[in-house]
Amino acid sequence: MIDLNADLGEGFGRWTLTDDDALLSVVTSANVACGFHAGDPSVMRRVCDLAAERGVRIGAQVSYRDLAGFGRRAMDVPPDELAAEVAYQIGALRVFAEAAGAEVAYVKPHGALYNRTVHDDGQARAVVAGVRLAGGALPVLGLPGSRLLAAVADAGLTGVPEAFADRAYTPEGTLVPRREPDSVVTDGDTVVRRALAFAVDGGVEAVDGSRVAVAARSLCLHGDTPGAARLAVRVREALETAGVEVGAFA
Amino acid sequence: MIDLNADLGEGFGRWTLTDDDALLSVVTSANVACGFHAGDPSVMRRVCDLAAERGVRIGAQVSYRDLAGFGRRAMDVPPDELAAEVAYQIGALRVFAEAAGAEVAYVKPHGALYNRTVHDDGQARAVVAGVRLAGGALPVLGLPGSRLLAAVADAGLTGVPEAFADRAYTPEGTLVPRREPDSVVTDGDTVVRRALAFAVDGGVEAVDGSRVAVAARSLCLHGDTPGAARLAVRVREALETAGVEVGAFA
Amino acid sequence: MIDLNADLGEGFGRWTLTDDDALLSVVTSANVACGFHAGDPSVMRRVCDLAAERGVRIGAQVSYRDLAGFGRRAMDVPPDELAAEVAYQIGALRVFAEAAGAEVAYVKPHGALYNRTVHDDGQARAVVAGVRLAGGALPVLGLPGSRLLAAVADAGLTGVPEAFADRAYTPEGTLVPRREPDSVVTDGDTVVRRALAFAVDGGVEAVDGSRVAVAARSLCLHGDTPGAARLAVRVREALETAGVEVGAFA
Amino acid sequence: MIDLNADLGEGFGRWTLTDDDALLSVVTSANVACGFHAGDPSVMRRVCDLAAERGVRIGAQVSYRDLAGFGRRAMDVPPDELAAEVAYQIGALRVFAEAAGAEVAYVKPHGALYNRTVHDDGQARAVVAGVRLAGGALPVLGLPGSRLLAAVADAGLTGVPEAFADRAYTPEGTLVPRREPDSVVTDGDTVVRRALAFAVDGGVEAVDGSRVAVAARSLCLHGDTPGAARLAVRVREALETAGVEVGAFA
Repeated sequence: MIDLNADLGEGFGRWTLTDDDALLSVVTSANVACGFHAGDPSVMRRVCDLAAERGVRIGAQVSYRDLAGFGRRAMDVPPDELAAEVAYQIGALRVFAEAAGAEVAYVKPHGALYNRTVHDDGQARAVVAGVRLAGGALPVLGLPGSRLLAAVADAGLTGVPEAFADRAYTPEGTLVPRREPDSVVTDGDTVVRRALAFAVDGGVEAVDGSRVAVAARSLCLHGDTPGAARLAVRVREALETAGVEVGAFA
Repeated sequence: MIDLNADLGEGFGRWTLTDDDALLSVVTSANVACGFHAGDPSVMRRVCDLAAERGVRIGAQVSYRDLAGFGRRAMDVPPDELAAEVAYQIGALRVFAEAAGAEVAYVKPHGALYNRTVHDDGQARAVVAGVRLAGGALPVLGLPGSRLLAAVADAGLTGVPEAFADRAYTPEGTLVPRREPDSVVTDGDTVVRRALAFAVDGGVEAVDGSRVAVAARSLCLHGDTPGAARLAVRVREALETAGVEVGAFA
Repeated sequence: MIDLNADLGEGFGRWTLTDDDALLSVVTSANVACGFHAGDPSVMRRVCDLAAERGVRIGAQVSYRDLAGFGRRAMDVPPDELAAEVAYQIGALRVFAEAAGAEVAYVKPHGALYNRTVHDDGQARAVVAGVRLAGGALPVLGLPGSRLLAAVADAGLTGVPEAFADRAYTPEGTLVPRREPDSVVTDGDTVVRRALAFAVDGGVEAVDGSRVAVAARSLCLHGDTPGAARLAVRVREALETAGVEVGAFA
Repeated sequence: MIDLNADLGEGFGRWTLTDDDALLSVVTSANVACGFHAGDPSVMRRVCDLAAERGVRIGAQVSYRDLAGFGRRAMDVPPDELAAEVAYQIGALRVFAEAAGAEVAYVKPHGALYNRTVHDDGQARAVVAGVRLAGGALPVLGLPGSRLLAAVADAGLTGVPEAFADRAYTPEGTLVPRREPDSVVTDGDTVVRRALAFAVDGGVEAVDGSRVAVAARSLCLHGDTPGAARLAVRVREALETAGVEVGAFA
């Protein structure tokens, strides 16, 4: 059984980015932007309503405070400030999830915060402190082997390792950085094939041709590329055809 | 019995405005800024911790989204957007109140949103829609006779009428606009005397010398003027000396 | 001879809105967003570079400070603050226009600021004060009969009256408010026909079937609707076929 | 001859930080915040007017876009974006300087951008690219030996090395990081004595007791600490008493 997650609600005011409606018919977990890199209150409300209606699990996609950079610019935020910022975002989203009859069920850092907490223990611990501050012992999605999931485990919370069907992996199981060529898989058939590999075989082919084990309980599908919704449908259909149960992580 | 409320946590990042520590030793209800006109997550956390420690009730001071104007510039926000913005702020504050072992116990609009909802029914109803969206049937502080308190009553919520000891009143019981001379009472003795008048006599002298009845369950003390904390102490002492019980509204 | 203007550079960070490249091949004046409702520094730079390369005149599209509302929410900004905000935006854009070997050649208020200065004399005069503060005696685009153009004339600056080919007009020559049905003309053929009417006949059919004179020196083409760029091409071709010279206002 | 510079205009909306009026009677160069870490358009205008009136030179104090962190949180801003952000800030300030009959005469990075460009060549070059984009070949204030001043020299611009009378120095001539004890000199007499040492002796005592040479053409006085303005007066008087001419760098 595998979970499918995607970033949703990444518009702001007049701007839209993701096809929330279409994606919410495919994924089982919705990472909802909480206003720091994207996501104004009206968008958050709409996505939560739609997610609740379709039984899609709602998660808080927390970010550095950086609208102009879409949360993709790493920031040296002092740990106490970062913890409070993470908790603030979770609390804001909770209002809309609960108004829709649902709840915020997990947390996933976005963009630069996600990448930085792979290696940076201090920022990882600050994110976890923010999750604890927000109460409810929420699970946290992250990269297997990341400092983030280590800090989550240390805090007695549940870490949910995820994999990326459209990203190249090193033999060590980390993502090939975006600045390198071929770091992103754009061919649809290959994305589908790699999604199956993660779900069925528990691993994928690395850039050097070797096989790398990746114990993922969730697959991340990107929602901000052209054709994203259609590709998500193909991935889900391929998984189900292969007998993989698609459902939110326990 | 009368409640004393003040705006707190109105700093942002490097900037501070109110002497939160001193005021939290005097007031019984703290209107905490939620990030839209002032109040970053770290400030919100600190004020909630201190308020909870001292048994001061925590309220969400919700505002138009206007840091540059400190929420004092009226904005034509479409009702649906405004409701979502109000709910967002309440939810964000709730995290810090609950982490401190307390709760968000009421809502009070700030600045231009407060002034506008005195007369503007559409904006008043949008604020109430936001309060309802946030759940918990929170009471709302407002001006007696305001459209806001009317909308609150229509929605079956509790309105808490408040009075301002440092503001001049018209014979009709509304505030003399700030742009007019003598709209603000700056003499400390007069502020203390008027606070007593509200609490003991249920009314105050209007600008034309007549007596106007004001049925207030809470007195608002301003916290952003020099000497604000000391004046608040004097008001509280005078009330207690006169046998008025000072405590949070029920 | 008629000028064609359009709003450009209305993205922000990760978000895009207008097809700047295509529109800059059609219009003669580019209203460039300056960061208050849209337009980050990188977008501003790119649009200025492209406009200069193609000989398109650059104007500052100034707005209330309201990213979340895309500048479409009217704000009661004190006149002194508004003047400074307008000047700030002009100055910021000037850097990129001049770096591209061009200049900021005019000013046009955006969204709620545009609509409000049709009737609100105080806000109109504040915009003009901002334009004067920025130096260079820049011309200002506005609605014929607006308070804005009256204030512009009073200040000895040049007002440039403009018309909207895709908006319905009242018999008095004002725009039918967007909240009313049929306020926006969506049929491409009709838009083209009305553009010709403004340019050739100096007027257009009003909603009641009467003919209303509109002395426009510029036509505003909207850039943020699907098919906007294609429609702009059709308008320009129709004008040129009819013998109307298309060029920036003097 | 030595220049005295200070950060000014670091308020925002309702908040103030520095005593601009008092400091503008002492310093010869005013580093004016441009809106990214502090400084709204109204503050910028007021400071420029006052600086021009008193003959104080105006500089653009450019920053990462981070109001919540007061520009003190390092950010990984891609070089092209950073250059555009720097130019934007310079252009915005230029409007107010020129309206006051003065000009933006130099650039100084603020906070995290200042600290980072001491060592980070990419960010340093991006700042210089922004200065060049803004035109006018503006001089840049920075730390002697910094990557910033190296990049400034490479670009054929003028670097102005500065010293800090209230900061401890390593034997290598760099600042002792703020996180270390005794990194900041708080005793007024010592600050005055060290200011004299920089101006008269061309160096100062390092933390290990050795003497370190610092070739400074400007002394930075901090304006955001209690008593800052009074201390600035004392420094200036001591310099003049010792026969040092105080004036803006050429």
